[in-house]
Amino acid sequence: MENGALNHETETASTITIKGILSLLMQNVDERNCKRLISLGMGDPTVYSCFHTTHVAGEAVVEALQSDKFNGYSPTVGLPQTRRAIAEYLSSDLPYKLSPDDVFITSGCTQAIDVALSMLARPGANILIPRPGFPIYELCATFRRLEIRYFDLLPEKGWEVDLDLVEALADQNTVGLVIINPGNPCGSVYSYQHLKKIAETAEKLKIPVIADEVYGHLVFGDNPFVPMAVFGSVVPVLTLGSLSKRWIVPGWRLGWFVINDPSGMFKNPKIIERIKKYFDILGGPATFIQAAVPRIIEETDQVFFEKTINTLKQASDICWDLIKEIPCITCPHKPQGSMAVMIKLDVSSLEDISDDIDFCFRLAKEESVIILPGTAVGLKNWLRITFAADPHSLKEALGRLKSFCRRHSKQMQQPY
Amino acid sequence: MENGALNHETETASTITIKGILSLLMQNVDERNCKRLISLGMGDPTVYSCFHTTHVAGEAVVEALQSDKFNGYSPTVGLPQTRRAIAEYLSSDLPYKLSPDDVFITSGCTQAIDVALSMLARPGANILIPRPGFPIYELCATFRRLEIRYFDLLPEKGWEVDLDLVEALADQNTVGLVIINPGNPCGSVYSYQHLKKIAETAEKLKIPVIADEVYGHLVFGDNPFVPMAVFGSVVPVLTLGSLSKRWIVPGWRLGWFVINDPSGMFKNPKIIERIKKYFDILGGPATFIQAAVPRIIEETDQVFFEKTINTLKQASDICWDLIKEIPCITCPHKPQGSMAVMIKLDVSSLEDISDDIDFCFRLAKEESVIILPGTAVGLKNWLRITFAADPHSLKEALGRLKSFCRRHSKQMQQPY
Repeated sequence: MENGALNHETETASTITIKGILSLLMQNVDERNCKRLISLGMGDPTVYSCFHTTHVAGEAVVEALQSDKFNGYSPTVGLPQTRRAIAEYLSSDLPYKLSPDDVFITSGCTQAIDVALSMLARPGANILIPRPGFPIYELCATFRRLEIRYFDLLPEKGWEVDLDLVEALADQNTVGLVIINPGNPCGSVYSYQHLKKIAETAEKLKIPVIADEVYGHLVFGDNPFVPMAVFGSVVPVLTLGSLSKRWIVPGWRLGWFVINDPSGMFKNPKIIERIKKYFDILGGPATFIQAAVPRIIEETDQVFFEKTINTLKQASDICWDLIKEIPCITCPHKPQGSMAVMIKLDVSSLEDISDDIDFCFRLAKEESVIILPGTAVGLKNWLRITFAADPHSLKEALGRLKSFCRRHSKQMQQPY
Repeated sequence: MENGALNHETETASTITIKGILSLLMQNVDERNCKRLISLGMGDPTVYSCFHTTHVAGEAVVEALQSDKFNGYSPTVGLPQTRRAIAEYLSSDLPYKLSPDDVFITSGCTQAIDVALSMLARPGANILIPRPGFPIYELCATFRRLEIRYFDLLPEKGWEVDLDLVEALADQNTVGLVIINPGNPCGSVYSYQHLKKIAETAEKLKIPVIADEVYGHLVFGDNPFVPMAVFGSVVPVLTLGSLSKRWIVPGWRLGWFVINDPSGMFKNPKIIERIKKYFDILGGPATFIQAAVPRIIEETDQVFFEKTINTLKQASDICWDLIKEIPCITCPHKPQGSMAVMIKLDVSSLEDISDDIDFCFRLAKEESVIILPGTAVGLKNWLRITFAADPHSLKEALGRLKSFCRRHSKQMQQPY
């Protein structure tokens, strides 16, 4: 085919995806190796039985399905009762009240990312995204022809945003600033003060903040979870979220894109009209899953949330403690939230390993343990460990990581 | 907000959406009018109880959900078993066998449209789409910066494609030709011979055919349903489909994008890689609904399909017969498939109605009957009637349409 061959662009040829790398790592696992495969690579807690959604969630979905009232189309922006339920859920943490019209229901947080970036894109525009970060932003920006400018997160400051760099990177074509809090891949949870500074910086630059809060409320350290939208009166905030992580149902694809703009700086009828039209070309989540949301939110017990937090806290403690004992890697900041943590790899202290990618491939082959090379999230010679696993698997995996590091460390290989 | 204000483009300001117009029509219904509201506007058969999915479909979804194995992420291109089931389902009508790798699972047919258009878009490209057609194509092409060139469907030839016009419109920047068969909004079903000519034309122009078969198998006239992919060896065919219409579950958002290219003219590793990456930024359908698909396809009884077809045939007969008795409108071609039919409005024979939009707004107000102005699907002074309704409602609505037309007809207002 000449005209329709699709191979006109190599726009995404170089983009690394987490799933792509993990899939290659999986293929590198040596099947002759008798060790059980343990993956600490993906942010999908459902793999481990200690993470299980609450019964009411499944019951609510079955009830909605069996009511026979929700087999048809929903409005493309979402069912009114679902929008209302999410608006109320999010408003309870805010100093103002969201309207159901501020909430757009998406097929998971992934689609909410696409909505935000597609709606901000225009010829010549650029967007500021964190490094390390979540590669879907880069991939999506590339498809939507939005230039990416990376600002650093500072490990020595608990992975806070380098706001001086943000100011230096922004120009008149900058259309937004992305933050992910609680942080993936770093496990950071920003303080009220830091979020306030982010809001003030964005306000100064006249750009909205895109706040990815897919790990919202999943915190277990000193800082409480503060939604970015608390500062919605300072600067418009586009909040992206979903049921996926807090309710442990990532496969249900129920997310939201929310415009927090109580001062009306951002939203105007034309913008809203354009967003609504964009939703007309999106698939959106199943109507009966949407219909279950009000009951899910209303009837989920605090005990369920606390159990998840406790399990995550225990897992992060195991991670923190065991990593200290492992040569050649260090963790600069104890995770306070989300399900992942970044670990620094000291390549110079390793005998025969060239970089983080080499490290992860060798680890997969020799120890049947999968962890993500930092390169996949923008930091070469770092590693991302997802600790949403049961304690037994986590200890076993970190034990094997320890053996691996000892075996490949220069020091260990020197004769005593 | 200056930079992030989103109001930089009016790219979609003029785009009419079916849902947008229907919503305005609904607002125009006079609530003081005692007549029951009857909508023949939307292609959502679930509104009428005579259209109901098969029990096995709901059971399969509940089973998948309650198995607790499908709360996590699926691969973004779809679960392997779902891709395999769709490949087998579609292959049974083809002279070659699809591989599961040819099938990508989407959030309804809408997302499949976006995948096709986004993957074909490049700077300067244009795509050929039918008029009348389905406005999501126009909306999606506009968002993806793909120029639209309309070719006519010919009412006097059973709404066949004007292939001379297709050839005249195409140039070196044309990247695809869209057909919708069975036809929405026309109710047409193309013959094997006409589809063969379409394939030959596309082959001559070196462009793939995008075959929207969301109404696949829903035929009840002389022509059987022939999937465009039967001609996949002549020209690559991108088939778009879903469970929505045949299984009467449009709200489940389970669709597919399929590359039919047994000769390998179109697909190459780079293209496939790019498509896979595009799926990484899409939300996709819920994992447990995907997991139900193999059982749904395997266990759905032929009797269920036949019942739907019979109900649609009966409805289309009612439509055809009653429209003949109504002044000022004519139906050039009896529907043979899908759920809709196009009706020509003779504005000159109406006393006080300016066009199709005026007609529909007045009809909504005076008779509480909603039908779609043809303008919304690209044909001014036509009307689209969706006949996926129960016989009683259909007869009642067409009776009111008749009164309305008689009341507003010039002839009827003349004194005897």
